[in-house]
Amino acid sequence: MKVAIIGIGLIGGSFAKDIRKLYPEATLWGIDANEDHLQRALELGLIDAEAAYKDLTDATMVLVAVPVDVLVQELPKILDAVGEETVVFDAGSTKAMICATIENHPKRRNFLACHPIAGTEFSGPDAAMAQLYKGKTNIICEVEKTAFKLQEKALQLFQEMGMRIRYMNADAHDKHIAYVSHLSHISSFMLGKTVIEKEKNERDIFDMAGSGFESTVRLAKSSPAMWTPIFKQNKANVVETLQEYIQNLEQFKQMLLEDDFKGVYEEMNNTNKIKQILNGIPMNGNVD
Amino acid sequence: MKVAIIGIGLIGGSFAKDIRKLYPEATLWGIDANEDHLQRALELGLIDAEAAYKDLTDATMVLVAVPVDVLVQELPKILDAVGEETVVFDAGSTKAMICATIENHPKRRNFLACHPIAGTEFSGPDAAMAQLYKGKTNIICEVEKTAFKLQEKALQLFQEMGMRIRYMNADAHDKHIAYVSHLSHISSFMLGKTVIEKEKNERDIFDMAGSGFESTVRLAKSSPAMWTPIFKQNKANVVETLQEYIQNLEQFKQMLLEDDFKGVYEEMNNTNKIKQILNGIPMNGNVD
Repeated sequence: MKVAIIGIGLIGGSFAKDIRKLYPEATLWGIDANEDHLQRALELGLIDAEAAYKDLTDATMVLVAVPVDVLVQELPKILDAVGEETVVFDAGSTKAMICATIENHPKRRNFLACHPIAGTEFSGPDAAMAQLYKGKTNIICEVEKTAFKLQEKALQLFQEMGMRIRYMNADAHDKHIAYVSHLSHISSFMLGKTVIEKEKNERDIFDMAGSGFESTVRLAKSSPAMWTPIFKQNKANVVETLQEYIQNLEQFKQMLLEDDFKGVYEEMNNTNKIKQILNGIPMNGNVD
Repeated sequence: MKVAIIGIGLIGGSFAKDIRKLYPEATLWGIDANEDHLQRALELGLIDAEAAYKDLTDATMVLVAVPVDVLVQELPKILDAVGEETVVFDAGSTKAMICATIENHPKRRNFLACHPIAGTEFSGPDAAMAQLYKGKTNIICEVEKTAFKLQEKALQLFQEMGMRIRYMNADAHDKHIAYVSHLSHISSFMLGKTVIEKEKNERDIFDMAGSGFESTVRLAKSSPAMWTPIFKQNKANVVETLQEYIQNLEQFKQMLLEDDFKGVYEEMNNTNKIKQILNGIPMNGNVD
């Protein structure tokens, strides 16, 4: 079994770790535009050897775990290069543009459009984590466009990694994920920015910030290189979520200005029901 | 040693646990307007007996861990009731109004204005945690207005509990805490509200939400009874933080609309420096 990981960062590297464990006999190839990441991945034993697109014709599986703008650019070439029996899957946080890009590719049936809902705020091969995907949901779009036998190959891996599968339409995925992931990242970044701008004395932030602050700003450690293309591709949906979020913040501010504390109380009370929903979300081992 | 805990929830209950451990011979009294909480606290062994204000004259220490509107209302009566040598301290998330309220109280010198930066999103006596305060910062305001010997008594306890102390002016505390705590809570609540309103099908939230979403919305599980009075007392500062935050979100939205992705990248890149600051913040044991 030969598996190629294109993009050996947090996402690709974590897949590599699990594949290594589940299929000890497999050969793991790595392709990465970042030479440092490639060397580090070899050092860490995440991959066995460097490869090139010309080698992909012999690959059993190919994971493309790169920023979504690179994905859109490279996926056609990757599909050109793979063999008849190779299954190619991605992990991109957007799905519509990626699917549209290779809609008519002669090897469309070799591609499975995936979005595993898993990650941390860290990046690069050193961030790779075993079992990052365990108990997590993998959203698969346009499954009917992937050859059945190749679907099965990929699903076998996902099942062994402990992922649960959810099938979804690509446009619907992008619409929902804007609310349930993309907006959270923007809220964190802007919260971080607001505090940094105001709290010129960092000592004050350090002294006064507790775990509540940390959890709302944690995502502000995320990679701009990963998130800029995501917001670009999902722009319309992301702008819509921002509009709604800003409106809700404005209304809350207005209630404070008008001393409507009964309203303030009710808003928070109504939102408390998020508890039930959140209680079902799987975490990364011990760490949030 | 007799310690009275007024308000035996997460905050008061957690103090009780540590005091129990550090001073096994101490008697712990509880006072709580919520009869269920009082009974539960007795059941859990957080306190030894119920007490009333008339008993406070014999107390060595009194912790008032109630919502800040109740605090403002009750603190004068509590100070009326305590003995000459009793040290009374609070844990309120706002400090200016509380300090102003008892500014001229005959027993002002018995009171130490505190804000320990510690907590979880849970409430009530069942939420009480041992060592919640370990390694956390306790902000003390107007320390010079507390009798020296009584300061020492309280500081001794805080030191044994593993807290570090930071002295601050009450108005400055309220100004800074608005940015570093209060705004985070509002952002979480409004994020939760935005998602609940849009994602009518809760299955979708559950399927698509990962730990990133969870961490930004976690604080939306917080108690409205605790937070409404905080926002009310710190209204001017909180409104200011909301204004800045909303402005930053608007600007980000504008950059997306104008396809200024270079700007988007830079904003996120600049905010990445929050990493260094966040790395210093102590967490609650293993759980964020």
